[in-house]
Amino acid sequence: MAHKFSQAERSAVYRAIEQRRDVRQFVACDLGEEVLRRLLAAAHAAPSVGFMQPWDFIVVRDRAVRRKIRDHVLCQKEKAGRHYKNERAELYQRLKVEGILDSSLAIAVTCDSRRGGSVNFGRVTMPQTARFSVCAAIENFWLAARAEGLGVGWVSILEPSWLKTLLNIPRHIEFVALLCVGAAQDFPKEPVLQTAGWRKRESLEKLVHAERWGRPYAWGREASEAKR
Amino acid sequence: MAHKFSQAERSAVYRAIEQRRDVRQFVACDLGEEVLRRLLAAAHAAPSVGFMQPWDFIVVRDRAVRRKIRDHVLCQKEKAGRHYKNERAELYQRLKVEGILDSSLAIAVTCDSRRGGSVNFGRVTMPQTARFSVCAAIENFWLAARAEGLGVGWVSILEPSWLKTLLNIPRHIEFVALLCVGAAQDFPKEPVLQTAGWRKRESLEKLVHAERWGRPYAWGREASEAKR
Repeated sequence: MAHKFSQAERSAVYRAIEQRRDVRQFVACDLGEEVLRRLLAAAHAAPSVGFMQPWDFIVVRDRAVRRKIRDHVLCQKEKAGRHYKNERAELYQRLKVEGILDSSLAIAVTCDSRRGGSVNFGRVTMPQTARFSVCAAIENFWLAARAEGLGVGWVSILEPSWLKTLLNIPRHIEFVALLCVGAAQDFPKEPVLQTAGWRKRESLEKLVHAERWGRPYAWGREASEAKR
Repeated sequence: MAHKFSQAERSAVYRAIEQRRDVRQFVACDLGEEVLRRLLAAAHAAPSVGFMQPWDFIVVRDRAVRRKIRDHVLCQKEKAGRHYKNERAELYQRLKVEGILDSSLAIAVTCDSRRGGSVNFGRVTMPQTARFSVCAAIENFWLAARAEGLGVGWVSILEPSWLKTLLNIPRHIEFVALLCVGAAQDFPKEPVLQTAGWRKRESLEKLVHAERWGRPYAWGREASEAKR
């Protein structure tokens, strides 16, 4: 079977998935254009509803522009921090939420809902699937970066309208994500928010339901019961 | 560097990304519970804003339930098809948009926006990032399935409220995707919508902008210019 993956290939894919991290700590590196193109090609290979490929990528290297974004993010972080109290507030203050100036470049990822043409194949009942496709592209980019030994951090503490103005993004284009890309200081074993004590990983068992919402999945029995 | 991927590992990750397909044609197979658990664990390893892990997975094997979903999807497909005319309408009729009964099982993937607690870490300015995280989980699942030699098809031609009622999904939980999973008949070289003449792949060049929207990225020059 030509389409089969070897055991080693399979393991490599799982390794990228398990060892991908949301990186906030970068070290200086020259991010070459060849590797950048590979990462963007990986994003472009993502699934999209009706094959509409609604994504665009704005690569921002200019430090003056990135400094503006960093300042905006820190201001938004401070605003959002007012919701917390006591230890939670202290912990929040300590968390590093961005690595915009430490990374090599930032990429703004957008969604053009009109790209599919006037009739929205596969999107009549669920128009939101256009931006869902963009998110799949982002995850492809992220996993490819992990395989290249590069870190990616998704910064969401910002006002989309502010960033759209800064980067001259047209009104009908939706801003989806700002990704910081560069050489990761390291890839910690677990998410930094877990290590910091912010939140624990949920048990997978609780998240899997059988046949309908709320019926726990009985591992080891469901497949055989379905056959009867 | 312990975190580095070998060239072979890197290639395997890119192979999964490039050879992943949205599969509508399945062949009969017993999908084991061990592989299903590996795929769901891969999904659960996805990035999530504030580490909120907002996803749930409802595994549907029951053929009677899947038949209802298939009938609903075909009805929605027919409705949506009224938007097309002439050759486009004919082509649309021929396209297979689901493999619900041919696949081994279906998985409804949902988003619980409340999971992060009352304060939404990283989501104050962009609450939609909760469901973006779910989409990253879906792409992880999809790539892991490709590495396992399994096909996944994302069916979006359905009414979320209808499916929520059918699967008993609570009001505050958002339905994100229905995935069909099984042994793929094959993994075609290009997306089926491209082969069918529905839509071509966009040129990556047109989708990459430098510094701001609309300024074409000059490959081979941007990185060095940024250094000056």
